[in-house]
Amino acid sequence: MNQFGREYRLSIFGESHGQCVGIVIDGCPAGIPLHENDFLTDIQRRKSGAKGTTPRTEEDRPVIKTGLFNGHTTGAPLMIQFENTNTRSHDYSFIKDTPRPGHADFVAMEKFGGFEDYRGGGHFSGRITLGLVVAGVIAKKIIHPVLVQAKLIEAGGIQDIDKAIDRAIEKNDSIGGIVQCIATNIPIGLGEPFFDSVEASISHMVFSIPAIKGVEFGSGFEAAKMTGSQHNDKIMDVNGKTATNHAGGINGGITNGNDIVIRVAVKPTSSIKLPQHTISLKDRKIKELIVEGRHDTCIALRIPVVVENAVACVLADFMLMAHQAGRVNR
Amino acid sequence: MNQFGREYRLSIFGESHGQCVGIVIDGCPAGIPLHENDFLTDIQRRKSGAKGTTPRTEEDRPVIKTGLFNGHTTGAPLMIQFENTNTRSHDYSFIKDTPRPGHADFVAMEKFGGFEDYRGGGHFSGRITLGLVVAGVIAKKIIHPVLVQAKLIEAGGIQDIDKAIDRAIEKNDSIGGIVQCIATNIPIGLGEPFFDSVEASISHMVFSIPAIKGVEFGSGFEAAKMTGSQHNDKIMDVNGKTATNHAGGINGGITNGNDIVIRVAVKPTSSIKLPQHTISLKDRKIKELIVEGRHDTCIALRIPVVVENAVACVLADFMLMAHQAGRVNR
Amino acid sequence: MNQFGREYRLSIFGESHGQCVGIVIDGCPAGIPLHENDFLTDIQRRKSGAKGTTPRTEEDRPVIKTGLFNGHTTGAPLMIQFENTNTRSHDYSFIKDTPRPGHADFVAMEKFGGFEDYRGGGHFSGRITLGLVVAGVIAKKIIHPVLVQAKLIEAGGIQDIDKAIDRAIEKNDSIGGIVQCIATNIPIGLGEPFFDSVEASISHMVFSIPAIKGVEFGSGFEAAKMTGSQHNDKIMDVNGKTATNHAGGINGGITNGNDIVIRVAVKPTSSIKLPQHTISLKDRKIKELIVEGRHDTCIALRIPVVVENAVACVLADFMLMAHQAGRVNR
Amino acid sequence: MNQFGREYRLSIFGESHGQCVGIVIDGCPAGIPLHENDFLTDIQRRKSGAKGTTPRTEEDRPVIKTGLFNGHTTGAPLMIQFENTNTRSHDYSFIKDTPRPGHADFVAMEKFGGFEDYRGGGHFSGRITLGLVVAGVIAKKIIHPVLVQAKLIEAGGIQDIDKAIDRAIEKNDSIGGIVQCIATNIPIGLGEPFFDSVEASISHMVFSIPAIKGVEFGSGFEAAKMTGSQHNDKIMDVNGKTATNHAGGINGGITNGNDIVIRVAVKPTSSIKLPQHTISLKDRKIKELIVEGRHDTCIALRIPVVVENAVACVLADFMLMAHQAGRVNR
Repeated sequence: MNQFGREYRLSIFGESHGQCVGIVIDGCPAGIPLHENDFLTDIQRRKSGAKGTTPRTEEDRPVIKTGLFNGHTTGAPLMIQFENTNTRSHDYSFIKDTPRPGHADFVAMEKFGGFEDYRGGGHFSGRITLGLVVAGVIAKKIIHPVLVQAKLIEAGGIQDIDKAIDRAIEKNDSIGGIVQCIATNIPIGLGEPFFDSVEASISHMVFSIPAIKGVEFGSGFEAAKMTGSQHNDKIMDVNGKTATNHAGGINGGITNGNDIVIRVAVKPTSSIKLPQHTISLKDRKIKELIVEGRHDTCIALRIPVVVENAVACVLADFMLMAHQAGRVNR
Repeated sequence: MNQFGREYRLSIFGESHGQCVGIVIDGCPAGIPLHENDFLTDIQRRKSGAKGTTPRTEEDRPVIKTGLFNGHTTGAPLMIQFENTNTRSHDYSFIKDTPRPGHADFVAMEKFGGFEDYRGGGHFSGRITLGLVVAGVIAKKIIHPVLVQAKLIEAGGIQDIDKAIDRAIEKNDSIGGIVQCIATNIPIGLGEPFFDSVEASISHMVFSIPAIKGVEFGSGFEAAKMTGSQHNDKIMDVNGKTATNHAGGINGGITNGNDIVIRVAVKPTSSIKLPQHTISLKDRKIKELIVEGRHDTCIALRIPVVVENAVACVLADFMLMAHQAGRVNR
Repeated sequence: MNQFGREYRLSIFGESHGQCVGIVIDGCPAGIPLHENDFLTDIQRRKSGAKGTTPRTEEDRPVIKTGLFNGHTTGAPLMIQFENTNTRSHDYSFIKDTPRPGHADFVAMEKFGGFEDYRGGGHFSGRITLGLVVAGVIAKKIIHPVLVQAKLIEAGGIQDIDKAIDRAIEKNDSIGGIVQCIATNIPIGLGEPFFDSVEASISHMVFSIPAIKGVEFGSGFEAAKMTGSQHNDKIMDVNGKTATNHAGGINGGITNGNDIVIRVAVKPTSSIKLPQHTISLKDRKIKELIVEGRHDTCIALRIPVVVENAVACVLADFMLMAHQAGRVNR
Repeated sequence: MNQFGREYRLSIFGESHGQCVGIVIDGCPAGIPLHENDFLTDIQRRKSGAKGTTPRTEEDRPVIKTGLFNGHTTGAPLMIQFENTNTRSHDYSFIKDTPRPGHADFVAMEKFGGFEDYRGGGHFSGRITLGLVVAGVIAKKIIHPVLVQAKLIEAGGIQDIDKAIDRAIEKNDSIGGIVQCIATNIPIGLGEPFFDSVEASISHMVFSIPAIKGVEFGSGFEAAKMTGSQHNDKIMDVNGKTATNHAGGINGGITNGNDIVIRVAVKPTSSIKLPQHTISLKDRKIKELIVEGRHDTCIALRIPVVVENAVACVLADFMLMAHQAGRVNR
């Protein structure tokens, strides 16, 4: 559903072309210094407008409506909201008859009986991730000195991302990419297996982000091709530092103190200007569809900060949990 | 922690060399015909003994202790337990000083302050997955006529799995592999985004299984190299059937009626007979370690049924949820 | 924390003298007709202004910010918010030194380290219950034809409530009262024991409401004085209709089809105009305190609609759950 | 459902006349000294056999199957189980036609479609509370030096409990009673309002116990008759010690450091030897029913230890949570 987390709990809401998007953050400790400006850098990283991203530019101004007092978090829920201002909903009316390939149009209609807000993807829009971004900014304060950093390391199958985008724009097509996220200064012992291993919890969160189709840790899918003698990371000191990091910083679902390494596959943006075929729900015939609107050539360009902040939220959740050894005085 | 699910709730317990392993299943509907023999086929598939698997063979006899009456589930929690019989715990005493590379030994010691049951991996052992297997057998009854089937499609980087195993045995080394899981006859509309998308929930469950380092859906990491015009699946009829299935049966986190396709990367077994280096926690020096005990050359051989049944549990959970359109009569 | 519910999930936020209060409702089925005016009757019932209630009158205008489209719920989260307009925060600055008896001032300071928003009770204010009221209005639509109705049946120990209030106003004192809530047209089989019995879930919700100190079902505390032959309700027909209803419509934690009967004890408003003693945290001396501000003589007057709607939310949650027998087709 | 708790998580299972009853406890910190004998005192307090309790005496021998190693908890789930030995199931076959007044027979049939294990109340039996008792024994170790103590303070409406029981036995009838539970040495700041106030969480747990029909805190229902000047507890020192304790140690849903005081109404045992009327489901006629079997004259005699240990579980859950101020180092 639209809630995530045990101790650092998120509850998101909003639609692409409705009044607003936003998030309620529950469980944030009291006393964290916070100002709306703290969000701006990460919001800027997520923003559209650059080459390869949609020309729809929202002001994306975060307003902290609750949970803040005298410049600090109060321990009560933070509600942070972004008004939608720059919407052009007339672009989307065709969806009701001809669902766009690769989009949620068809399943949303089936699941919500036609009552869904289909404008701009509605609640399925990537715009919803704004809430994750602000939740992650606060999470980063909580987990300090743990650092989380993500970047796009490949697009359209090549590492020269600029070139990949140019090619795609030229063809009126879209491309995917790979985001890598690394978390450093990790304490040993985060993770609550069996079911809430670090991989399980992070992947749950990351796969919530629209357009993600694969998640791997450490050597990931490459591990499947390796031998044990290659893959095992030699333990080098009593702090658990390893010579290699094929495990991606996680053994048995628990952090081992080495960097957490995550790679995420982002599919190409579904909306493209090329003609595509879909079914007409009215007359049951295949129809040609050209998706106008304003779209990203490479949504993967905007996803690193979302992945990064989503991972920060999961780490905050783990760090606020109580199950580390020695937590209870006896 | 050790619980999973909202409507079909699992609570697992047990250790490799303790008295037993098992599971409590809550939320299973009343009236499902069930007999302990129903589990045997899937338990057999998970069993060791074949080439490439550990020679430790447990009887693995499931006992349904509660929740069954007159051959049917009652609606009360099912507790299913497997006594451990064939344990040789003296093999594992070295762990306390020299944690095995690739294993949870080191992190468990740090997290649980040395109180963890380290014998045979304790609660981190793959033996814990027996509970998932039986929960999946029941889940498959709940989700009928949905079918879930997983198999090993690659080991040690090649598709001739037999050959891959022979090579590894010859070198006293271990290998990883790739498991593919496909679910068919899927109703449209399963999945509860934003946070509980089908990918999020399945990956959460699957990454709980020991040795999993990557999960992808549909074209997965390949999608990152594709263009939108290649990746988008053309919708062919009013039931949402698509010409291709790059989405792996999921749009916007919701099933679209096409097959769900999952691929899972399994790392090579961490325990190998080759000498490895680790730290001695006592004298803080690097030491050579040879892990004796009884281990799998290719744990991936035994994982398909675990992935398959884990996925079945997630689908059962979704199918028992109430949020499909039209659920509430108005 | 600030979330409640499994299928009908509430996430509340806000402070008495901050920008707003409100709620996010997740899991609301799509297709329910809804308009902001639908809330007005119940908001009016909760409103202050009448004899015995605070003269602080807020406009209490509910704004549905998300989850609504074309006059119907969409299946996406509803975010409903009330701007605070009529705040006089200077009244509350004394709290930091002299915590008010009977209030959360002292514990909030201890728990949140002085970072809490203490103005008007902050997040502890009864004003937070506005979110419950609107969630209940929608819940009542979901549970139709189940009806929930609550009223004040006693104040200050007597049933002539008007007289009780006059007495209290005369003495500058406050009084408590008893709210009775009855739900009718109840289907048989709601409730998910062991832990989520109807009593457990309703009491959890109702005890969240500020000022509640007791909850009982059916004959309640009176049952402790009865014999089994008096207390047992004779079953009169095959639909489970009973001759008496000492059980309050619940057996074994599950609804039996008879009316659910709940009684709730509301303590007297803590803020009174009479001088009281408290500790000064600065100089550690007992000080006399007169709480000015604007307060209710009998907060119990405003609580029936809160209890009623809170109970409706719990019933909606149960009715959206899937565990009724026969839910799964086999 | 059959799970409770956020950090100290219980998962119960079992039936009165099935193979066993028991509990899985997840989230118990590692390193707590534990032996099966530690449970015996509290199990003895719950045991039947004394005057006013059923003559069915089970050995009630707790077996810790998992989560224990070298005499200490390991941090992995504890599974503790009691085999059922002394069952006489033939006593209960009549239930299928003539549901017993006051029991769950009728609702269980309706909810579980006749598949429920009806023998001895099945999963609805008070025998299920054995799991709560052992979970509470461990919880008491976690919360030390907090102390929880419950006792029966009234039965059949009088305080001479012995006399009350004699009277009821004489009449072949049953009686209810009132259990008072007091927790001392309470730290300030437990409780997670809005929804998880101390009252909400404790009442949720306590109302799960069969036969409970009312729960109140501090002055409870009496508060409804008091004035604010009477009810408000004067704060006497900077540690929050109050002159009176009408609040029952809780303000705003959070512990204030004074004793937590809970009173619980227990209804009379439903099974009595006197003839009663119920409906015959077969021929739809009213029938006279005499419940033979072995029953408690006053189940309230056995409930104090259950309430006490249930409350201890809730306090353990709160104390393992992370949201106390200052928890996160900044």
